[in-house]
Parts: sequence; structure tokens; C-alpha cells
Amino acid sequence: MNKYKISVIGASGYAGAELVRILLGHPNATLAALSSVSYTGQSIADLYPAYRNICEQLLVSEEEAIEKGDVIFASLPHGLSQEIALACDKAGKLFIDLGADFRLDDGETYTAWYGKEFVYPELHAKQVYGLSEIYREDVKNTKIIGNPGCYPTSVALAAYPAIKNGLVKGTDFIIDSKSGVTGAGKSLTQKTHYPECNEAFSPYNIGKHRHTPEIEQTLSRFAGKKVNVTFVPHLLPVNRGIISTIYADKTDGLTLEKIHEIYTETYKNERFVRVLPLGDVANLRNVRMSNYCDISVHEDSHTGKLILVSAIDNMFKGAAGQAVQNMNIALGLDEAAGIDFVPPAI
Amino acid sequence: MNKYKISVIGASGYAGAELVRILLGHPNATLAALSSVSYTGQSIADLYPAYRNICEQLLVSEEEAIEKGDVIFASLPHGLSQEIALACDKAGKLFIDLGADFRLDDGETYTAWYGKEFVYPELHAKQVYGLSEIYREDVKNTKIIGNPGCYPTSVALAAYPAIKNGLVKGTDFIIDSKSGVTGAGKSLTQKTHYPECNEAFSPYNIGKHRHTPEIEQTLSRFAGKKVNVTFVPHLLPVNRGIISTIYADKTDGLTLEKIHEIYTETYKNERFVRVLPLGDVANLRNVRMSNYCDISVHEDSHTGKLILVSAIDNMFKGAAGQAVQNMNIALGLDEAAGIDFVPPAI
Amino acid sequence: MNKYKISVIGASGYAGAELVRILLGHPNATLAALSSVSYTGQSIADLYPAYRNICEQLLVSEEEAIEKGDVIFASLPHGLSQEIALACDKAGKLFIDLGADFRLDDGETYTAWYGKEFVYPELHAKQVYGLSEIYREDVKNTKIIGNPGCYPTSVALAAYPAIKNGLVKGTDFIIDSKSGVTGAGKSLTQKTHYPECNEAFSPYNIGKHRHTPEIEQTLSRFAGKKVNVTFVPHLLPVNRGIISTIYADKTDGLTLEKIHEIYTETYKNERFVRVLPLGDVANLRNVRMSNYCDISVHEDSHTGKLILVSAIDNMFKGAAGQAVQNMNIALGLDEAAGIDFVPPAI
Amino acid sequence: MNKYKISVIGASGYAGAELVRILLGHPNATLAALSSVSYTGQSIADLYPAYRNICEQLLVSEEEAIEKGDVIFASLPHGLSQEIALACDKAGKLFIDLGADFRLDDGETYTAWYGKEFVYPELHAKQVYGLSEIYREDVKNTKIIGNPGCYPTSVALAAYPAIKNGLVKGTDFIIDSKSGVTGAGKSLTQKTHYPECNEAFSPYNIGKHRHTPEIEQTLSRFAGKKVNVTFVPHLLPVNRGIISTIYADKTDGLTLEKIHEIYTETYKNERFVRVLPLGDVANLRNVRMSNYCDISVHEDSHTGKLILVSAIDNMFKGAAGQAVQNMNIALGLDEAAGIDFVPPAI
Repeated sequence: MNKYKISVIGASGYAGAELVRILLGHPNATLAALSSVSYTGQSIADLYPAYRNICEQLLVSEEEAIEKGDVIFASLPHGLSQEIALACDKAGKLFIDLGADFRLDDGETYTAWYGKEFVYPELHAKQVYGLSEIYREDVKNTKIIGNPGCYPTSVALAAYPAIKNGLVKGTDFIIDSKSGVTGAGKSLTQKTHYPECNEAFSPYNIGKHRHTPEIEQTLSRFAGKKVNVTFVPHLLPVNRGIISTIYADKTDGLTLEKIHEIYTETYKNERFVRVLPLGDVANLRNVRMSNYCDISVHEDSHTGKLILVSAIDNMFKGAAGQAVQNMNIALGLDEAAGIDFVPPAI
Repeated sequence: MNKYKISVIGASGYAGAELVRILLGHPNATLAALSSVSYTGQSIADLYPAYRNICEQLLVSEEEAIEKGDVIFASLPHGLSQEIALACDKAGKLFIDLGADFRLDDGETYTAWYGKEFVYPELHAKQVYGLSEIYREDVKNTKIIGNPGCYPTSVALAAYPAIKNGLVKGTDFIIDSKSGVTGAGKSLTQKTHYPECNEAFSPYNIGKHRHTPEIEQTLSRFAGKKVNVTFVPHLLPVNRGIISTIYADKTDGLTLEKIHEIYTETYKNERFVRVLPLGDVANLRNVRMSNYCDISVHEDSHTGKLILVSAIDNMFKGAAGQAVQNMNIALGLDEAAGIDFVPPAI
Repeated sequence: MNKYKISVIGASGYAGAELVRILLGHPNATLAALSSVSYTGQSIADLYPAYRNICEQLLVSEEEAIEKGDVIFASLPHGLSQEIALACDKAGKLFIDLGADFRLDDGETYTAWYGKEFVYPELHAKQVYGLSEIYREDVKNTKIIGNPGCYPTSVALAAYPAIKNGLVKGTDFIIDSKSGVTGAGKSLTQKTHYPECNEAFSPYNIGKHRHTPEIEQTLSRFAGKKVNVTFVPHLLPVNRGIISTIYADKTDGLTLEKIHEIYTETYKNERFVRVLPLGDVANLRNVRMSNYCDISVHEDSHTGKLILVSAIDNMFKGAAGQAVQNMNIALGLDEAAGIDFVPPAI
Repeated sequence: MNKYKISVIGASGYAGAELVRILLGHPNATLAALSSVSYTGQSIADLYPAYRNICEQLLVSEEEAIEKGDVIFASLPHGLSQEIALACDKAGKLFIDLGADFRLDDGETYTAWYGKEFVYPELHAKQVYGLSEIYREDVKNTKIIGNPGCYPTSVALAAYPAIKNGLVKGTDFIIDSKSGVTGAGKSLTQKTHYPECNEAFSPYNIGKHRHTPEIEQTLSRFAGKKVNVTFVPHLLPVNRGIISTIYADKTDGLTLEKIHEIYTETYKNERFVRVLPLGDVANLRNVRMSNYCDISVHEDSHTGKLILVSAIDNMFKGAAGQAVQNMNIALGLDEAAGIDFVPPAI
């Protein structure tokens, strides 16, 4: 079987480490190189003893990683992916960025929220937003993929059928999201120190989380007009998983049964999106360690609100899993190759 | 010091057990009797070994509990408190109900949501909704107190200054609440079985939770007109605590600083309500094991939403603690007597 | 590729559900039938929504499961597997029992600890104790495999090199084990009710856990003489994983380096047993969701104790994973087929 | 009522913060000063928002804290308390050290395990080991109290009746302890980063934890001869609480009933030590947030081991609570003043 040589830049972070795990089991992949600025020279298994004996590759430089791979994944803080994209572009390599640099179409918005600039506008002209189920065709035709953020993935997949089919009126969405702590990454903070994070819960970055413009961009693209999103993320004392609870005004006269039917129809051919039976509620425990996105639809009949609930694993469908899904699409492989994990029942 | 004889009916449940714990340390209380239908004859310490050597009272019948107490608390499933209220009313005893029977003013609403009837309308005419900080004066003048539900307490205290002072426009509120698992009580369910509740998270009873009419009743009373509430509760994998995240349309022209000032002013004399400094976010970990309600105010400036965050301990301020606070008010005691626990830093 | 038809009896329990998950991804297996006494006629996905769209098989009767499968797994309470074994034996089918009926060699011990009898002694004469790494050759030559218990697996793999190589003196072992809550199964109990299990920890069944005779049988077999085990299990507030901390008297004159070398040598060809570098400590988080057993060796130099630490996932290597490993061995397949999951770093 | 002025040095750490919480509710205490090297000038409520509005004292220098208090508590890394003790000694103030500097009698042992020296041997001649229940009389007669470590407290109270009454033979104890994460303190480490600590469990510092010599010193003093302890601590994914499981050889001919009777008799007048009914097992959830130590006694009849299980809250009885208990004893106050918290049932 043909095997692609894959490099992971930023392999020492959580999303990078999850990529490594997925790629180790991918039938069409070999790990060409893993890079890390902070841990160069160390084995990935020293950082993550779960990989002991399974993958003992030494972490190398970014340059070496680009050089050795056919496909380059990067999982880095914003601002650091543009030079990598340039190098890949020049070398004709597929580049999949799990950071924020290639998600936003508009340079000004990027600058406003991230405080950096689009250095190479011509690269951004080639970028595709890798929301696999929706932009599959575009993903096939690019070599620069901006992998969606975790929250935006959970929101966009849930909102898409409603917006595309006019199931909601108006353009206002309230999105109350809750993410497991791996979403905050490997860096130590007081907030994620076990005794202060366990038996705790609160929102953060209210009205100013950087995923807000990304969500608005995507929902607006679905709608063909400007959509306004009030987005409040919360830190949830679990390791993995996101629940997004989404509130919008239901179009008059629509029954929930009809809405459910449209949702089911929209995703009937999608392996990784499951529209739950009416009455069931999406729970992050059912998608952990997998690429699935579970969606359930609900209403508050007395206020006329449509309520959408979406569950993903933030590290998998929300990061590394979808990145590999995009790779599979871009390379013309079976879309589920290497990511067809069955979520554990318990 | 004058000591009141206190009885707790339904002492074997979680709220009942928390009442026992609080009353054991109350300077003006002695435990007259604890009752339980399911565990009559057993010691409360057999059910809750935390109380071993501290309180070994045997659980008695409801009748004995009413007979022996000056003040009667009941924490029972809905429908079971009306006869107790009648008995207390006849005997001139103070009755504080932690269940749902004396919270709603309107019998039809009660019947619609709970499937039972107001058996003695004359008792409901005397009932006072025991949201201590807001209805303190009424609490002083009744002998039948309907102690607010946990979610409604968290919501009402946060929404009160906004509604009273016209800080929000319109009458629509979206309330996304998250509660610790003690809120689901002592009864065993698959959903609260540890392996299925740990590392899990989801909403439940979407658009049909029984606290919805109670919240609407209270907010409408604040507003002097009908308020519509979309309420979605979630089950949070922690033992104690509620976070309610509340969304409403901010009145035009108001700054967040002004809103914060009004909130601070509203609660400046309240011991148990803390309006956090602007920029801080309420976290349930700061109010656990205490009667405090922490409130933080936020906005999404680009959508014009006012976002309120409220944190309480569902078993304390959301149940047993506020019940004792109401007792203190009704008996003319120091309002903080026995409930002035300092929440643990860790 | 040749596919075996596999049936799982007791598929509605946690170990059964984990077997289903593993077999769904096994390259040489198709699920012939899943059975459950309690949930016959329901879909496995109704019990475990994680399997929605992936496996919607209806639960059937035990008889149908035996009839349809080439290989029969059973995960049932003790006493219920003997008739199944008999049916499999008559039909010449491979039977792998995850329960306790075919683990003990001695009928009297079985009766003393489990209160049941060996009904068909001739079946027990054929049984093999499926501790894969140690009894691989025996597993190849039987059709009745008693899959080891979770605690015994964690203990036996850790103790084997020490006993076989005389690294410990005397015959006394103190084993202090801690297991995640899935080990207690799907049945609801007060002890595993979330609010009473979270932020809690204690031993249970001290000196009388049913895995004690199984551990003693295995260690005695290793030693060629009677070994005495003091075994105390504890319930750990995590979903999955066991840590066994084992104390024994180190043979005089041996250095820890030498012991480590012998451990490393013993398991050098074993894919699923990892002897950690000296200085590292086994942690259950590194083996979760995988078939790995991590072992670390330590000493207390001032008391002369050898201290062994062993980590497994109780549901995987401790139950379903090792059962499939045994199937692979018995059928002559790649021993790692279908169970070569990389444990997640986070 | 007479109020003592109390200072807490090292108030920004977890044990310091817990001391503050307890002292805030102590009937005979006022907080004179709180000190912190790292956070001087900040409010304790900025560090611990749980204390907002309740205690907003600014953190001051160590010198100011000593100057202002009648009683000085210190909770500092080892080596830093000796100068404070000297200053208190000169000023005739009661000094209670929650660190390690005044626990060991022997300077060489201190140096061997902590790498520091006894700078003022004359102070160590005055020190008393503040295991309240056992050394109450000594505590009354000193002004320098070395408050026991958390693990040593849990072990010593459980082992005392056995050793004093000859219930065990030999002098070897195996102690397998498990502590909640607050025991590791406020400092950030990868090991206590939520995603790496949650759903994780392992031993640490095997055979070389600094509490080992302290435990041996105490048990040896009980025994009147050298006792050897093999001590292995584990990090438990809960916030608070320690379980110590202790293994020793039971004296021949003693029944468990007799042992239980002796335990019960030993502690019959102790408010904070509860010997559980035979058959019950100590669980840390029953002592959280309280000064109680629960002890249960067990045996493995076939190996002749006596197994003792001890549960405390590591921050309360294992640190701040016992420190205040010692203060109460030393000052001649009610021993339970300010620390008579009822542990929550849930």
C-alpha cells in the first residue's frame, strides 16, 4: 500500500501528540519527522510515556520536518505557520495547519483578533477552510488547509442545516459552549492546576474568545449574509469533549419533526456526523476518542427557540482527527482511513 | 441562648442531610426529630457515615417530626408537602418547604407542570416565596415559606438588578445553566452512575424543566410584566454547584461600568451576594459549601448582549442554606446564624 | 481475508460492550450475534449510544448467539458459563469466558469462594488460564479459555519475573490494588452513585475479594509452591485503569539494576508488556484504552522490600482486550490483531 | 470573649489559606496579619476569590506578621522556619510550624532527608511533636510546636493502639498511602496539570518520601524500639483527603473483635478520632472538610495480617485543623474551638 511520509510540526503539544497517535495507526502514513522547538532532541515518548516502545522518535527542527515530509501538519501558536506554509507552497507539499493562521479569510479580522498580519496574502488566497463535511470539494483542490478550531467545528456542523434550509429566522445566534481541559493545552496555568480546576466550572473570555470571528465567518458564509454570534465558552472539568448549546429563533410554522427530518437528510451520507433520534440528547461521552460529531435538535415551544446541541471530542474531530480527515480528502484516500475509531461505550 | 426545636422531614435525601449538617452547628437550633419514609428506624449516621458520632438520631415518622418541632422543614418530592403544611398551619408552626409545592402562585401552572392539584388553596394564599434577599419582608410575615429551587435562586439573584433597573430591553431571557450531580439527588439512575457521569456532559429536559415556570414567575414579578425564559439545564460532573449563564438584550446606551455600578449598589448590604469586580468571572468553586451567590456582569459589545453569570452551591444557597436563612429571617434571628460558612479556597 | 464469526454473550455489560467495540475493528472478525438476558430485542446502540450508526445489532438469546458464532465470548456473573461451555464443547467451538467459572483449577476453592459447584469436571480438565504472555502455548491447545480477572492480570504480569527468577525470598506478597469504577460494572449501587463515588476513596472487600484465590493460584504456579497473598482492592474515582502496588522481600544481594535487567529481559519480546526505564513509575493514564501492561520496579533500600507497580486498563488488558488476544492466539492469528490501540497521550 | 491575635506566615499556600479560613470562624481568634513572600501587597482574596468580601487582608512581610501576632503559624518550605522560631522564642510567642523543620528530633536525620541543618539546637530541644491526641500534655508545655505531616498523622493515629497494646508482632509496617492533589500544593507542575492528573493514578517517591523518617520516628516512639516502615505514597485524583492502608503482622491468638474493642477503648474520649463499627471501612469522603480521623480495623485471616485503614482530610486534620487544635490545647482553650466542622454527607 502506498504510504505517505508525514511530518508533524509542534508534536509536543496536545493536538500534535494526538496527531502522532492517529498517524501511527493510519494505513497510508509513515511518520517522517516530529518537530518541537522546546523539546528538540528528546523522544516523544519521554514527553508522553503512553507512547513508550510504540514511537520513540526524537523531536527535530521544523526545517528537518518540512524537508522530510510529503505532507506537513503544524500545530503551533498563531503567527508561526505562515513561513511554514510558504516553504510547503514552494516545495509543492500539502500543508495542513491546526493553528489559527489560515482560518480567517480577511486579513484585517485576523489582525484585529490576533494582533498579527497576513504576511503572504497570496498564500491566503489559496487557503481552504477545512470543515470536511461542508467544504470537501474545496479541500480536494488546495495545498493549504486551515483546519477549523474546536469550538467552530462543533458549532458549524450543528448550525449548517438550519441556516442552509432557512429553519431559523433572523441572524442572531447565542452559543454557549463547554470544553474539556485539553482544549487549554499543555501549558501550566493556575486555572488548569488540578485542585483549582477539579470541582470547578466557569465561563471565560466572555464575548472576546478568538473563535468568535471564525464562527461568524462560517455561519455568515452558510447564510449568504452577516450572522451575529454571541459566543461564551466555559471550562469543563473533563479531559476531552465539547458541548455547544446553540439558541436561535425558529422559523414560524416549522415542526421539530420537520427540522429533524431535514437534519437527518442533510447528513445521511456522512459517516462522522450523527443526527440523533428525536428525544435523544447529544452527550460528549458518546464521541470521546473518535471523529464523530453528534447533533441533537430541540425546541422550546413556548418561546419559539430552536435549540441545537452538538458534541465532539475537541482533540479528535475538533483538531487532529479532522486534520487527518482533510489529509485523506486532499490525497484522495478513503476519507475514514486511520480515523474510524469506535468511541468507547464507557 | 434561646434554642428552637427543629424537625426535618425527608432527612434521608441530600437536601435533608445538608439541612441536618447546618442545623447541627446552628447556635439557635436543636434537632428535635428527623424523619424518613424509606429509612424509619435507622440512624442518620448509617445513611451518612460522615455524621458518625456527631448525630446518631434515629429516623422517625413524619407525624412525630411535626409533633416535636417548633419549626418544620420538609424536603420531599412534589405533592407531599401540602398535608404537612396543613398540620403546621393548624398548630401554628413555621413551615419551610424545600420541595415544589409552595413555590408557584398559580394552581393551574402547578397542575400543568407537576400533574398535581393545590389541595388547600387557603394555604397557598399564605405562602411566601423565600428568595431571601428580595422577599425578606414577606418572609417575616408568614408561616409557610416555599424555598426557591436551586436553578431559580441562581437565576433570580442575577437577573433582579437588571430587570428592576431596566438594564435590559425586551422580555426574553436565555438561561443556560449547569448543575452538579447532587442536584439529581440520592436516587440511583444510569445517568448518575459514576462511569457514565464522569467524563460526560450534556443538557437534559430541554425546554421542559420544571424550574422554568418558577423562573418565569419570579422574573415576571420583578418586571411587572410577562417575561419569557428559554431555560436549558445541563448535568455537570462535579458534586456541588450551579453556574447559570444568562443572555439578554442590553438597553441601548448603557455602559458595562454603569451596569456593574448598579449591581454593586443593589447588593451592597447583602452578606451573601457578592458582585464580583468587573473583569472577574463567577466560578462555582468559590461558593461551594457556603451560602454565597457570586455574580459577574459581562457584555458582548458587538451583539449588544448583556451576559450575567451566577454561581451558587446548589445544596447550600440553592437548598438547605437558604432555607435556614429564611428560618432566621422568619424567627427574627441574625440572618447569617449558622450559615456563615467561609467557602474553602481549595 | 478470512473472517471469523464471533458471538458475545452478555454484551450489555461493560466488558461485553468493550468486546463489541474491539471486535468491530478487528480485521478477522465479524459480529455474528450479541446476546443479553435483560435487554433482548433492544439494539446495543440504545444501551450504548456511542455505538449509534456503527453497530445497531439487536440483542438476541444466548442460544442464538452460540448457534451463530464460530467463537463464543461470555461475560456473565459466575455460575452461568458452564452450560455455555458445554454447548461450545459439543459443537467444537472456541469458548472464551470472561467470568470466573473457568479460572480456578480446583473445584473446592471455586465452591468456597463463589458458592457454586463445578458441574462438568471434564470441562474444567480442558480449561486453560488465559494469561496470554505466560500461558500462550497452552492457549493454542484448548477450546476453553478462562480469561483472567482484572486484578489478577495486573498482579501476575508484575510478579512473574520476580518469582520465576528468585528475586524475592519467602512466599508472602502484600498487594494493594486500586481500580477504576468500570470494574464494578454497569449495575447501580449507592457506592458508585456519582456524588458518593466522586471525591471519595476507600478499600473494599478487605481480605475477602474473590480475586484472592485466583492470584494465589497463579503466583503459586509460578513459584512451584504455595504463595500467600494479602490482597486489598480499592475503588478509585476514575473510569478505567488499575494500579497494583506489590510488596515482597527482596532476595539478599540483588541490586535494583539487576532486577530491572531481568524484568526487561523477560518481557523483551512481548508487545504488550512494557518494563519502564528505572526511575519511571507506572501510571494508569499511560495504558488507558489499550492492551498494554506497564510495570515499574522499585525498592525500599532501608527495609529491603522489592516494590512492583503494575498498570493496566481494567476493561482492556484486564478483560476484553486480553480475551481477544487469547482468541488471536488460539486461532493462530497475529496476536495483536484488532487490539493494537495506541494509548492516548492525553 | 478573649481573642488572640493570630498571624499566618505563608498564607498564600494551600495550608496557609486553609488556616485563614478556619481562623476566620474561630471564636477566640482575630487575624493579626497574613504574610507571603511572593504576593506581598496583594489581598488574600485576589489569590483566593472564595474569600472575597470575607477577608480582604493585604499580605505583609514575615517580620510584620511576627510583630503583630500573639500566636504565629508558619506554613513554609523546609529550612525557612528556624529563624521565625527564634524570633518567636525571643518574644515569648507561641509558634506552630506546619513545615518540616520542627518535626524530627534528630538533626542528622533532618540533614539526611532535607539537606539542611538544625541551626539552633536549643530550639529543637524545646520542640514538641504536635500529634494532638497522643502528645496533648506535651503540647500544653511548649511554645514551639512541630505540626505533624499529613501522611504521618493518618498513619500514627491508626497505628498507635496496635503498637501500644502489642496487637502486632515484629516491627515491620507496610504503609500504602493515597493523597488528594492539594497535598502537592499550589505550585504548578506537569503532574498536577488537570489533563494529566485527572483519570490518572500512580505512586511517587517510592521508598524515599520525606515523611518516612517522621513516620518511623513516631511509631518507634510508640513502640519503644526501632520500627521499620516501607512507605509508598500515591497521588489520588481528588482534591482533599488521605487514605492510608497499613499492613502488619497480627499478634497470634488475637481476634479482630478484641482488637476493635481496644481501638474503641483507646479513642473513646477523643472527639476527632472515630473508630468505625466492625465491618465498616474508612472512606475519605466522610472526613473531608473536617478535623476527623476515621479508622477501621480489618484482618486477612488466612495470612494473619492486621490491616488498618485511616482516613483524614489532608488539609484539615493533616495540616491546618490539627495546627489550630494544637493552638487550642496550648492556649488552654476548648480543644474543638473553631474546628468543630461537621463533615458534609455529600
